[in-house]
Amino acid sequence: MAAVVALDSLIAALPPGMVVTDPDILAAYRQDRAQDPDAGTPLALIRPTTTEQVQTAVRWCAENRVPMITRGAGTSLSGGSTAVDGAVTISTEKMRELTIDTATRTAVVQPGLFNAEVKAAAAAHDLWYPPDPSSFEICSIGGNVATNAGGLCCVKYGVTTDYVLGLQVVLADGRAVRVGGKQLKDSAGLPLTKLFVGSEGLLGIITEVTLRLLPPQAPACTVVGSFASVTDASEAVLAITSKIRPAMLEFMDSVSINAVEDMLRMGLDRQAGALLVAQSDAPGPAGAAEVAIIRQAFEAHGAADVFDTDDPQEGEAFTAARRAAIPAVEKIGSLLLEDVGVPLPQLPALIGGVADIAADNDVMISVIAHAGDGNTHPLIVFDPDNADEAARAQVAFGQIMDLAISLGGTITGEHGVGRLKKAWLPNQVGPDVMELTALIKNALDPQGLLNPGVIL
Amino acid sequence: MAAVVALDSLIAALPPGMVVTDPDILAAYRQDRAQDPDAGTPLALIRPTTTEQVQTAVRWCAENRVPMITRGAGTSLSGGSTAVDGAVTISTEKMRELTIDTATRTAVVQPGLFNAEVKAAAAAHDLWYPPDPSSFEICSIGGNVATNAGGLCCVKYGVTTDYVLGLQVVLADGRAVRVGGKQLKDSAGLPLTKLFVGSEGLLGIITEVTLRLLPPQAPACTVVGSFASVTDASEAVLAITSKIRPAMLEFMDSVSINAVEDMLRMGLDRQAGALLVAQSDAPGPAGAAEVAIIRQAFEAHGAADVFDTDDPQEGEAFTAARRAAIPAVEKIGSLLLEDVGVPLPQLPALIGGVADIAADNDVMISVIAHAGDGNTHPLIVFDPDNADEAARAQVAFGQIMDLAISLGGTITGEHGVGRLKKAWLPNQVGPDVMELTALIKNALDPQGLLNPGVIL
Ligand SMILES: Cc1cc2nc3c(=O)[nH]c(=O)nc-3n(C[C@H](O)[C@H](O)[C@H](O)COP(=O)(O)OP(=O)(O)OC[C@H]3O[C@@H](n4cnc5c(N)ncnc54)[C@H](O)[C@@H]3O)c2cc1C
Ligand SMILES: Cc1cc2nc3c(=O)[nH]c(=O)nc-3n(C[C@H](O)[C@H](O)[C@H](O)COP(=O)(O)OP(=O)(O)OC[C@H]3O[C@@H](n4cnc5c(N)ncnc54)[C@H](O)[C@@H]3O)c2cc1C
Repeated sequence: MAAVVALDSLIAALPPGMVVTDPDILAAYRQDRAQDPDAGTPLALIRPTTTEQVQTAVRWCAENRVPMITRGAGTSLSGGSTAVDGAVTISTEKMRELTIDTATRTAVVQPGLFNAEVKAAAAAHDLWYPPDPSSFEICSIGGNVATNAGGLCCVKYGVTTDYVLGLQVVLADGRAVRVGGKQLKDSAGLPLTKLFVGSEGLLGIITEVTLRLLPPQAPACTVVGSFASVTDASEAVLAITSKIRPAMLEFMDSVSINAVEDMLRMGLDRQAGALLVAQSDAPGPAGAAEVAIIRQAFEAHGAADVFDTDDPQEGEAFTAARRAAIPAVEKIGSLLLEDVGVPLPQLPALIGGVADIAADNDVMISVIAHAGDGNTHPLIVFDPDNADEAARAQVAFGQIMDLAISLGGTITGEHGVGRLKKAWLPNQVGPDVMELTALIKNALDPQGLLNPGVIL
Repeated sequence: MAAVVALDSLIAALPPGMVVTDPDILAAYRQDRAQDPDAGTPLALIRPTTTEQVQTAVRWCAENRVPMITRGAGTSLSGGSTAVDGAVTISTEKMRELTIDTATRTAVVQPGLFNAEVKAAAAAHDLWYPPDPSSFEICSIGGNVATNAGGLCCVKYGVTTDYVLGLQVVLADGRAVRVGGKQLKDSAGLPLTKLFVGSEGLLGIITEVTLRLLPPQAPACTVVGSFASVTDASEAVLAITSKIRPAMLEFMDSVSINAVEDMLRMGLDRQAGALLVAQSDAPGPAGAAEVAIIRQAFEAHGAADVFDTDDPQEGEAFTAARRAAIPAVEKIGSLLLEDVGVPLPQLPALIGGVADIAADNDVMISVIAHAGDGNTHPLIVFDPDNADEAARAQVAFGQIMDLAISLGGTITGEHGVGRLKKAWLPNQVGPDVMELTALIKNALDPQGLLNPGVIL
């Protein structure tokens, strides 16, 4: 009963309709894309439009000791925005303001805009916001900042943190702070901007982001090759990255090729063991030289039908094919979605090891990868109605993380730890780093109200 | 007396000679390049060679509540490694191991190596470590990481944090943790690697750094132009940065031009009001196009004798001239060295405002700048034996920071807050961010033993 009374005071403190308790609407905010079957139901859904409203909500939660889950667009693949019983969910979906400043080449954006909307707004001023998670059309910029999202171009252009110059953050007690700003370099005090990027909502709610934009990317040339085996393809990756920094270097295995071909019917080679899609955006003869290096590496590893194009539309078709891989494989069954990364030379060992894990556990695992930076997404396919298979999938999920750790890598290259991977985090980073993490979390959120269950 | 006895136990715990108490040697470790007249004298100097020895020293300090100052090469311009009475100074100068891993394109280095040594070791494997503070031949990589050092190429290639993949850090209680690693992307847990880079030794002692290396930089073309006034030159900077990302864009005013010419006799235009040195390393026709844009911007702002060269030696001569500016101006008098940065469009207002501050206070201020990212170094020249002038210099020092803050900028773009700038930090970031900073510091170093007096 106490909670209900308190909710009234929250409802009264915010504009009409901003606090939602309709069970049908709440149901849609239970899960994120990780589809956690154990997801709770939000106590209430709050959809603020301003930083001040976020502060009001957070102050209310702090006073009433109500945990809060921050939700961007809910595309998390690690359960980061899954609802928790008894917690409110604060959705940023209605925080959609944006200003482009061409003089400083920055964008100041509220967190609820989609990544694609920021890209488009920048492009309208002949500017470029590089980070491009495959989910760019459906994920929020706030979620990208909170998870330090990567993507296809980050092999050359870096990840989200490289583009965040400043933030406004509402802390656990409801205070709003600004860190960083429009200046390109800033060494004033602890690097707090960098601390918040990738902190998965544990330390505060991001309500405004100042992003650095670049001049437009030079047109890219795309090279595509089909390989007999995943080993050949992963060795071609190393041959390329030891010489140049391609603008993109993506990997698909035969399961994902066929799943995408089933969906898009674009003529991919269904017999291939693996496909690589690479891009160079170096201008003029330098670009031609890079394309030659990529072609050579492909051919030296037995690629058939190596194909290159400087037609942007043709290139985009292959990029779109790669981006479609997760939804395409999802049509085969439910997915446990991995995100393990290794130092580049270990890529063949990782991909080979995943095949062994699939065989050992008798489950289908399709591997797609941002191969150029050693970040792979083994997709474990299972039938949720087959309890035995689901259990084997779960075993494989853990074994893949163990494998990545044993190869000196990480359990998550870009999706974040969320709720799904936290059991493995201590194995990767060790007890002292876990304690350090808890020390920082407790210093900034002593009541532990922000995103409980994520990471810690 | 208690302290002396305790020192014996420290001396006994470390190899012979590693703990230095000779007053003549200690005297050389009192000041860093900021030449703080109020510098203390180290209680002892500790020169470990391994992480374990750093741990031994830190544990001893923690047990005996002895503060510790971490010192790299002592080139700090903000008093970050100044000795404090009653504190030990832990110097990393003997931690000089390095391994280059060409397969992962990384360097694993101990903190005491000079930046130039890391660059050279990478170059020997045909790899490139970009960050290039002007002090690169005399500053340590550990100091670079602790201050998130910038430099000349960071206008295009970013600052130190962009190249740090992993760290080993000894925490305030003597535990050693590893964060990050050789994988290029890692979202596992809070971004602790990023938190330590730029934390100015407040949170731990960095004992090993894993650095990302790049393929060698393409040869650069250098463009040099002399301008009638600092305003013309700073407007030319904006004309360039609004179109392209040059690989370097450096600024010198007439005082620094003449000081460098006195020192190097290389034929710089002594009549010029300002000099810009720009570089493009874009390959082929793209590079030619960038050079044309730079030349046009120079000429549109009245530059005389615009000169370009693709001879690397000639280009390096101008880069070296720019790097020599601080030592050259130092020959005129003592320096209060500023490091203020602003969003790029405010650059002319900042440089103009600094001239007004010089006139108002009747002091000489020479301005040099990493102009392409809005980071300037006004050098306030004064005679330390002239108390009145020294006082006016001090007033100007504060006014320049106030000006930068009022223009939406930062009191330090790359040198760090250290001890000299901490009085101004609250004006820039506000009380809430100061409190956040203190919360994190207290969580990680509750006894406040690491670099007391820096930042906080
Ligand atoms: C098909 C598909 C492809 C994908 N491809 C990629 C890819 O290539 N690269 C990649 O990195 N990811 C990828 N993802 C994962 C996902 O899109 C990213 O993690 C994305 O950054 C999440 O954004 P979101 O807005 O959906 O955040 P949500 O899922 O809503 O939240 C993610 C996490 O961020 C926190 N959060 C969200 N907003 C805020 C805020 N304003 N303040 C504080 N914390 C906040 C949440 O609490 C949660 O912990 C993919 C997902 C799908 C479904
Ligand atoms: C002529 C000249 C030109 C310069 N030009 C530039 C420039 O272009 N760009 C730029 O960024 N800087 C520049 N600097 C400033 C200075 O060189 C940098 O700040 C450099 O990074 C300091 O390195 P150091 O080894 O000398 O560190 P120190 O001066 O010894 O220490 C600097 C700070 O880092 C801390 N620290 C050092 N090592 C460690 C460690 N291992 N673990 C934890 N904390 C540590 C110290 O406690 C101190 O707070 C210049 C200096 C001079 C004298």
